Amino acid sequence: MNRLLLIISGVLISIIVSAQTTQEAAIKSIYDLELTKGESYSMLEYLTTKIGSRLSGSPGAAAAVDWTRHVMKDFADTVWLQPVMVPHWVRGKQEIARAVSKRSGTYSLNVCALGGSVGTGPSGISAEVVEVKTFDELRALGAAVKGKIVFFNRGFDMTRINTFSAYGGAVEQRAMGPSEAAKLGAIGVIVRSMASGPEDYPHTGGLRYAPNIAQIPAVAISTNHADQLSQLLKDEKNLTLYIETHCKTLEDAPSFNVIGEIKGSERPEEIIVVGGHLDSWDLAQGAHDDGAGCVQSMEVLRLFKQLGIRPKRTIRAVMYMNEENGLRGGTEYAKQAELKKEKHLAAIESDRGGFTPRGFSMSGTEAMKTKVRSWKAMLEPYGLTDFNQEGGGADIGPLANQGVALFGYLPDSQRYFFLHHTKEDTFDKVNKRELELGAAAMAALVYLIDVNGL
Amino acid sequence: MNRLLLIISGVLISIIVSAQTTQEAAIKSIYDLELTKGESYSMLEYLTTKIGSRLSGSPGAAAAVDWTRHVMKDFADTVWLQPVMVPHWVRGKQEIARAVSKRSGTYSLNVCALGGSVGTGPSGISAEVVEVKTFDELRALGAAVKGKIVFFNRGFDMTRINTFSAYGGAVEQRAMGPSEAAKLGAIGVIVRSMASGPEDYPHTGGLRYAPNIAQIPAVAISTNHADQLSQLLKDEKNLTLYIETHCKTLEDAPSFNVIGEIKGSERPEEIIVVGGHLDSWDLAQGAHDDGAGCVQSMEVLRLFKQLGIRPKRTIRAVMYMNEENGLRGGTEYAKQAELKKEKHLAAIESDRGGFTPRGFSMSGTEAMKTKVRSWKAMLEPYGLTDFNQEGGGADIGPLANQGVALFGYLPDSQRYFFLHHTKEDTFDKVNKRELELGAAAMAALVYLIDVNGL
Repeated sequence: MNRLLLIISGVLISIIVSAQTTQEAAIKSIYDLELTKGESYSMLEYLTTKIGSRLSGSPGAAAAVDWTRHVMKDFADTVWLQPVMVPHWVRGKQEIARAVSKRSGTYSLNVCALGGSVGTGPSGISAEVVEVKTFDELRALGAAVKGKIVFFNRGFDMTRINTFSAYGGAVEQRAMGPSEAAKLGAIGVIVRSMASGPEDYPHTGGLRYAPNIAQIPAVAISTNHADQLSQLLKDEKNLTLYIETHCKTLEDAPSFNVIGEIKGSERPEEIIVVGGHLDSWDLAQGAHDDGAGCVQSMEVLRLFKQLGIRPKRTIRAVMYMNEENGLRGGTEYAKQAELKKEKHLAAIESDRGGFTPRGFSMSGTEAMKTKVRSWKAMLEPYGLTDFNQEGGGADIGPLANQGVALFGYLPDSQRYFFLHHTKEDTFDKVNKRELELGAAAMAALVYLIDVNGL
Repeated sequence: MNRLLLIISGVLISIIVSAQTTQEAAIKSIYDLELTKGESYSMLEYLTTKIGSRLSGSPGAAAAVDWTRHVMKDFADTVWLQPVMVPHWVRGKQEIARAVSKRSGTYSLNVCALGGSVGTGPSGISAEVVEVKTFDELRALGAAVKGKIVFFNRGFDMTRINTFSAYGGAVEQRAMGPSEAAKLGAIGVIVRSMASGPEDYPHTGGLRYAPNIAQIPAVAISTNHADQLSQLLKDEKNLTLYIETHCKTLEDAPSFNVIGEIKGSERPEEIIVVGGHLDSWDLAQGAHDDGAGCVQSMEVLRLFKQLGIRPKRTIRAVMYMNEENGLRGGTEYAKQAELKKEKHLAAIESDRGGFTPRGFSMSGTEAMKTKVRSWKAMLEPYGLTDFNQEGGGADIGPLANQGVALFGYLPDSQRYFFLHHTKEDTFDKVNKRELELGAAAMAALVYLIDVNGL
């Protein structure tokens, strides 16, 4: 190598090293601030304990919209509401379910209506039960299902280390089970809760009725009671089940996505989105799902503001409405982005709970993924080691066909499906440091994308 | 390369690949069994909720020894008790502490005696308070400390991602603060709890009185009350503090390490140890510290037995007594190993809580570490990615000078110091899957060491 080349390489290397050092220092300042004076935890406390559950169309959802707009004004350049009509489902009175055995008496079962289900009304439904684990098993029963209640009882595959994979292997029962059963003339459905453990409380969650199929009532049953019901059925095939639910779907209601923005200083037209969903199921406070993702996203803006980091690109925190039972917010956001010809560079979603960090999933080009992985050494000291999973998130999914790079924040998955969509998803289940590490992780990724591009 | 060499390399590669495949399959069978029919969680439930706290010399510790011996008989070839005399400290009646301000009245403070502390007796102690953050600050005060109560108020460095590092940066105040203060004539010590967050309850933990220095009473104060006390002192320098504790040290008591063993089939003289400590502090159930480590260690033997894995080497599960306030069990175990000329190949300790897995720390030769890291690809699918930290554990530490390779199970550290040594360390804070993943991780490492050597 000649002398000049040597000097040039030296200079180039020192520029790269110094850029890296600057970026490392910025990331450290983000973590230091969040871990010493973070506000994500106190924001979550307010959202979950003062406002509480936030099902689309509910007073809680409306209060959350107001509060979020109010809070973000403190650290965003602009805050606005994006109107969206949402489904409005209400649970009504507490559900009742009883297994009635001619031999051994009556067993009360812990159930809750699935979101979107029609209700049985006050007279309830009563019928014999057929237990199946798969749709194939169900179809093989054919006419034998007519007039019965179908009991979907396939549990999580507990050997899958990533519990989202176990959820993915079971959730079709909840989502499509009711219509699959109705096709064969069933009059109701009871589904084993989507859960990682033996529990006494049921997990709700959305169902999707297929078009032109009778809509039949559907409930989830706690895993412990699913085991009990299965055992009872082994002893007595013609056991009857009584189910009473009072849920119904009202007219669509007006609601909003809440958006806060810090304008980019060099390329304001390029937008980086961070977000979570503001709505939650009605059974608890929606702390991990997805209060955590919301306050982490807001915290990204606050950290930038507080640290005086003026981003080159525009950073938006979007609190989507209606992820749980319609995805209307995420769909509307993408639609408006397309209509307004906005250029979104990247979208990051946090909707897997406020647990300790593991990494980010990614969806986009190979070149983009390679670039992000080249930042690994700067993120690993903070526990972010997993950059191998494909995917983004439900709310940002609709942006995919606009060529936006998608990222999903990946916290550890082990505790999520003990509380997901249940009465247990409360503020006290969130650890302060775990939540803060997630907020800082998202801010660090936004920072790296803003500085280095994609 | 000539033809023969090519064939030989091909054969060698396929032997290596097939060995790796066998090992991967064995590891998967360990995880599958633990995650579907694991018994670590139910064992922990018994140990923590039926037996409860297990401070050395207490009836709880004795009951735990009996129970552990009884349980291990089901899956160990041999179980025995190793006698050891242990310190016997008792807390006595609930502690009292009050800050008395001439201006604004009396403030009750949440405190608990430090383990090993002398008590104040029923008449308590009352004195002015001097607040310091470091031993240097204390020494600089010199004679001004005489007759006072010293308030050590240096908190955790919250910016350290690994909370054990933050603990390490603060714990000298608890361990050596009392004697450091006594050297200058202080009459008592109050120490900010070793904690990761703002909390209302104090954290106990052992102190170490220096030889030939007056032993003065010492308590820990909750972090929230430490902040309050510090604020009060800003307003009123000559505030007085009243402390009343009833703790005392009785005569040493007889106790035991509990040891279960599966004899090696090929090299029975080579021993691989897994262990945790059976004793706990008295304020709670010792669920994470260290009930978790105990049941995980026992579970390693049970998994081997249940899966029909006959180890080449001897596998021992050791439940050490008295890690918390004396380390007599770990010391005695190493002493006996030396006396009996036992050859320990490796010792693995789990004493950082039953949280989600991150990896293993190691202490030993570079060759050993390189070998273990060559197994990384087989362990990473289970969340075990961190093999970079130095260290083993307190109980296995005394084995180091016998040339034993030491390993510390590293779960995620974020939640530990919210409950460590407090009333909050209870069974309900342990997640079933997180605990099980730790047990399987330890069994997997034992398996790899047994099969491949070190």
